[in-house]
Amino acid sequence: MPKQEKICSKHIRPIWLSQNLKVIKVIDQRLLPHRFMVAELKSVDDVINAIKETCVRGAPLIGVTAAYGVYLAALNAEDKPASNDFLIKECKRIKSARPTAINLTWAVDKVLAETLKAKTSSGKIKAALNEAERIVETEVENCKKIGENGLNLIAEISRRKDNQTVNILTHCNAGWLACVEYGTATAPIYAAFEKGIDIHVWVDETRPLNQGSRLTAWELGKQGVKHTVITDNAGGHLMQHGMVDIVIVGSDRTTRTGDVANKIGTYLKALAARDNNVPFYVALPSSAFDWNLKDGLKEIPIEMRDPDEIRYVQGFDQGAIKSVLITPESSPAANFAFDVTPARLVTGLITEKGICKATEHDINNMFPESKST
Amino acid sequence: MPKQEKICSKHIRPIWLSQNLKVIKVIDQRLLPHRFMVAELKSVDDVINAIKETCVRGAPLIGVTAAYGVYLAALNAEDKPASNDFLIKECKRIKSARPTAINLTWAVDKVLAETLKAKTSSGKIKAALNEAERIVETEVENCKKIGENGLNLIAEISRRKDNQTVNILTHCNAGWLACVEYGTATAPIYAAFEKGIDIHVWVDETRPLNQGSRLTAWELGKQGVKHTVITDNAGGHLMQHGMVDIVIVGSDRTTRTGDVANKIGTYLKALAARDNNVPFYVALPSSAFDWNLKDGLKEIPIEMRDPDEIRYVQGFDQGAIKSVLITPESSPAANFAFDVTPARLVTGLITEKGICKATEHDINNMFPESKST
Repeated sequence: MPKQEKICSKHIRPIWLSQNLKVIKVIDQRLLPHRFMVAELKSVDDVINAIKETCVRGAPLIGVTAAYGVYLAALNAEDKPASNDFLIKECKRIKSARPTAINLTWAVDKVLAETLKAKTSSGKIKAALNEAERIVETEVENCKKIGENGLNLIAEISRRKDNQTVNILTHCNAGWLACVEYGTATAPIYAAFEKGIDIHVWVDETRPLNQGSRLTAWELGKQGVKHTVITDNAGGHLMQHGMVDIVIVGSDRTTRTGDVANKIGTYLKALAARDNNVPFYVALPSSAFDWNLKDGLKEIPIEMRDPDEIRYVQGFDQGAIKSVLITPESSPAANFAFDVTPARLVTGLITEKGICKATEHDINNMFPESKST
Repeated sequence: MPKQEKICSKHIRPIWLSQNLKVIKVIDQRLLPHRFMVAELKSVDDVINAIKETCVRGAPLIGVTAAYGVYLAALNAEDKPASNDFLIKECKRIKSARPTAINLTWAVDKVLAETLKAKTSSGKIKAALNEAERIVETEVENCKKIGENGLNLIAEISRRKDNQTVNILTHCNAGWLACVEYGTATAPIYAAFEKGIDIHVWVDETRPLNQGSRLTAWELGKQGVKHTVITDNAGGHLMQHGMVDIVIVGSDRTTRTGDVANKIGTYLKALAARDNNVPFYVALPSSAFDWNLKDGLKEIPIEMRDPDEIRYVQGFDQGAIKSVLITPESSPAANFAFDVTPARLVTGLITEKGICKATEHDINNMFPESKST
């Protein structure tokens, strides 16, 4: 078992390559916080299943895992005659693992493009690996910058409150587990914590898969950041009573106009933030923008997942992880995994390049090089 | 085990008196939908514990249980010398079982007042029983009228949609389990169902105690009403996409100005309803009004419950009810049980007297006899 002390600094990442460069190793996030297990992904099918079944999850990490998946496809294509066709087909399969996070398509297309440029099998393998690792390091660097940029917001609130505790609410897990290091929404939190700013995080449990109460709470606890788990229902009440100073969430896909797809329930928190004049920020690397879309509500595909993720809840009892049935046996459930927060409810976007308003004009000014394809 | 067929009609109630009139029998709602068990309350302490531990829950049922509790106090006071003082003290204890539902205080004070008027011990016992049963029958009658009044809203939507399915969203359980018969929020739903109107109910699971996915789903399923369980996070997304025609919820306490305390998370649904022009109605009998309060956010006490209700989830596995731990062992949680939806977000109140706007003026016109005390 990897070292768990100060686990959110650089001691461990949620994904790494085995020493022989043939196996992707990932923390199996379905089992946290109760079991720390490492899963081995040896094939494109393994990669697809790990993404589908949320063994890895979080938009940036899905992108990174998929990037390594293209590398595995190149490794496996070695003996095939038409390896370019094979690669393109495998990439199509990887891209269809989950529909909402744009990082998946973005990362696969990036690695594929570099791979196809190489002429030989070994050249393709090298190109795929290089590009995948470039993506990993860029995402780490971007998350670090998101932390530096977002830190200013928290520091300012702290000053305004005469160094009293800054209460930050977050939804789902947009931590280092969802990325590679630092996280997106958590990057400013960790940066503020390291600066010694007095912070406390309200952690939405984030039904149905409890990424908040399982993963964010675990991350923050390991790092020693003060936090309290709440139900997804509670955030509005807290904001009504002045108990939230800022909301920071991540994003699975943001349009060029600033509409934000994120874990289901994000929109409700944005509404409550607006109703109570609480700033609502979205932290995202540029890989989470979809430059082709202008209307998030109409255009971003929202994943429907297995209703049993709602009907059953997984937890820990007597040394084992168990699923217990909540609903009547015969009651159906519907599992919408994401929602879209319209740009009008977003105070700002915290990116690696700085903080901008969630408007097409400001996003375009921040990323002038990005064009729709 | 009581007959479970068509259980929501008059075959069974969540509370009744034993034949010898000495024991209150209640459905133990903590075990539903997995076990149908009847608990016996034989003392004031039993009544207090049943209310505290949500063996009985729902504002009207808490009131009714407490009313019978005063009767048990009178029965138990028989041999005491200062029975009035004793009764007053016992009533104080009952009233402090839970803080938010106003029905508790209302019902206890009503029964106590009648009881104290009688001079003899046996007179007090009779008076307490009579008043408790009067409350029960009034609540049943009021819920029936709420159903008739709310039916018009659903019928009108059905007509406007050319008899296509009317989609109703509800939060928590404001069904017959929370009342005695019909329910409050469910009364219009059952009335519409009986009229043959095509309806479908989105059932918020209602964390942390899952009164939606456990109780409302069970009630609706038993009656044959089409329903789908969703996470508390999902309602906003559904409303954004035109999948909710009307929201109907209950109330634990509503001010004379129309501010509505209800299960935590209700406020978030009200915000989403307003943002998407979906009508948001609160169904409540007059016993849920607090005529003394004008500012719900400032004045209604919000219960804080055991954080372990969030950290653990109870469900069914291999023939047994089990609690499984969700969060890291060391992560704290905070369990705010209710929130307040400001009157400005409420389209209307469905009461036994009719439907009125959530304004002091209109509420006063509907209940001119009600004065603050």
